[in-house]
Amino acid sequence: MFSRTTQVEIQFGDCDPAGIVYYPNYFRFFDNATAGMLSAAFAMHKRNWLDHYGIAGIPMVDTGARFLRPSSFGDIVEIRSEITELGRSSFSVKHTLLNNGEIAIEAHEKRVWVARTPEGGIRSTPLPDEVRQLLEAAP
Amino acid sequence: MFSRTTQVEIQFGDCDPAGIVYYPNYFRFFDNATAGMLSAAFAMHKRNWLDHYGIAGIPMVDTGARFLRPSSFGDIVEIRSEITELGRSSFSVKHTLLNNGEIAIEAHEKRVWVARTPEGGIRSTPLPDEVRQLLEAAP
Amino acid sequence: MFSRTTQVEIQFGDCDPAGIVYYPNYFRFFDNATAGMLSAAFAMHKRNWLDHYGIAGIPMVDTGARFLRPSSFGDIVEIRSEITELGRSSFSVKHTLLNNGEIAIEAHEKRVWVARTPEGGIRSTPLPDEVRQLLEAAP
Amino acid sequence: MFSRTTQVEIQFGDCDPAGIVYYPNYFRFFDNATAGMLSAAFAMHKRNWLDHYGIAGIPMVDTGARFLRPSSFGDIVEIRSEITELGRSSFSVKHTLLNNGEIAIEAHEKRVWVARTPEGGIRSTPLPDEVRQLLEAAP
Repeated sequence: MFSRTTQVEIQFGDCDPAGIVYYPNYFRFFDNATAGMLSAAFAMHKRNWLDHYGIAGIPMVDTGARFLRPSSFGDIVEIRSEITELGRSSFSVKHTLLNNGEIAIEAHEKRVWVARTPEGGIRSTPLPDEVRQLLEAAP
Repeated sequence: MFSRTTQVEIQFGDCDPAGIVYYPNYFRFFDNATAGMLSAAFAMHKRNWLDHYGIAGIPMVDTGARFLRPSSFGDIVEIRSEITELGRSSFSVKHTLLNNGEIAIEAHEKRVWVARTPEGGIRSTPLPDEVRQLLEAAP
Repeated sequence: MFSRTTQVEIQFGDCDPAGIVYYPNYFRFFDNATAGMLSAAFAMHKRNWLDHYGIAGIPMVDTGARFLRPSSFGDIVEIRSEITELGRSSFSVKHTLLNNGEIAIEAHEKRVWVARTPEGGIRSTPLPDEVRQLLEAAP
Repeated sequence: MFSRTTQVEIQFGDCDPAGIVYYPNYFRFFDNATAGMLSAAFAMHKRNWLDHYGIAGIPMVDTGARFLRPSSFGDIVEIRSEITELGRSSFSVKHTLLNNGEIAIEAHEKRVWVARTPEGGIRSTPLPDEVRQLLEAAP
């Protein structure tokens, strides 16, 4: 399955009074990582592949994270993201965040491929074959 | 001119490793305060008055703040917001943030009343007379 | 077990270009809800009970959420939080976010009760009996 | 005076329902830019130079920005930061944010060099000669 590793430098404003990353910010990092991974798989930026595939977005339906070690201002962490499952109109991602080579967070997410309905709402729609092939590929 | 006072309770995640509010968050508080003030002046929620007046938004064109005292987790601060100037298609707001009765921040902002153009862009458009009257009124 | 319901008004800046709450912000809401619930249980603000019980914090070790319906700018959502489990030095919380009376998100979290070590690190420490009793109580 | 240019890629979560960067996030970008500029000037990371110079931080006392053009998801913007003034115990910075080669934002900030007092508070303290020389230098 497709995978991709990115780096994030922890900024002062990402951290809380305990001096460690305020955990909601990790979900922001993971959202960026997923967008970046799909952009790499599709060889175009997310703002382009939304149009290209005629979808409204890839809303999150389920996510979770286990926090094993904290990270702090100035740390440069590595996020290894990989597609773990392709459903009919959904896909799952696993993120492993490493700090100094050690696993700090294990996270997973499930997202849905959604199109805009004529009425202005959204509804899930099957993953196109092209998308399926690109996400199944080794990177 | 119209004015309104709101309260904000400082949350743990609003603060940084120095233990005080991370200053970009104050601009989030002020944005909420302006939206709330106009909603009070227009007697309808912002998501409704955008439609009601047929505008795309009130984008910021100029803002600034002087920080006199820090605020911390658990502080309940007061934001006094008031319209200070009405231009042809813009308006200015002054925010005074008080902590425990003392002025902690003085901020100002200038925003533009913008409509959507047929081409999908935005352009400034005159403040409607009704808006002008409501914002000129004492609260 | 102790429980508490709070309300959150969704702000413009909480939402993303899809017009719905950017999901990392829900974890910020849930963090605030847990802090508020414990403050209600202990009858003192979090900044005081950290000192009162001599702890460094209640870091998250595991959290997850299922997103059933989106929420948007101007929605006033209700978060029902309850203690679901008390471990030796940890506790679990369930959050149910309702929008217009319907369940929009179901989330859970597990946190650890940690003290500062002489070396400046942190380590888990048993929940005091007083804390255990207060969190076991019906609200 | 010292200056430095950095790039920021606008992320989906940086943007609001109008599809453009939610303006409080620009102050986060500028805070990161100042931290990065000083780290380059001092040839060590901010978490190290706080210790090295024995200071508690560089709190903001005054900031402002003029917004000339919006930026959107996927834009890669350039932030040119430069020291504009060195006071006895303060310094000023100018940030120019360019999008596609055009000036999108002009911002300024004034920060104070503060030390921890024996009582646990903070107070301004003179810029060390070494700091003054490093910040006066051309990059």
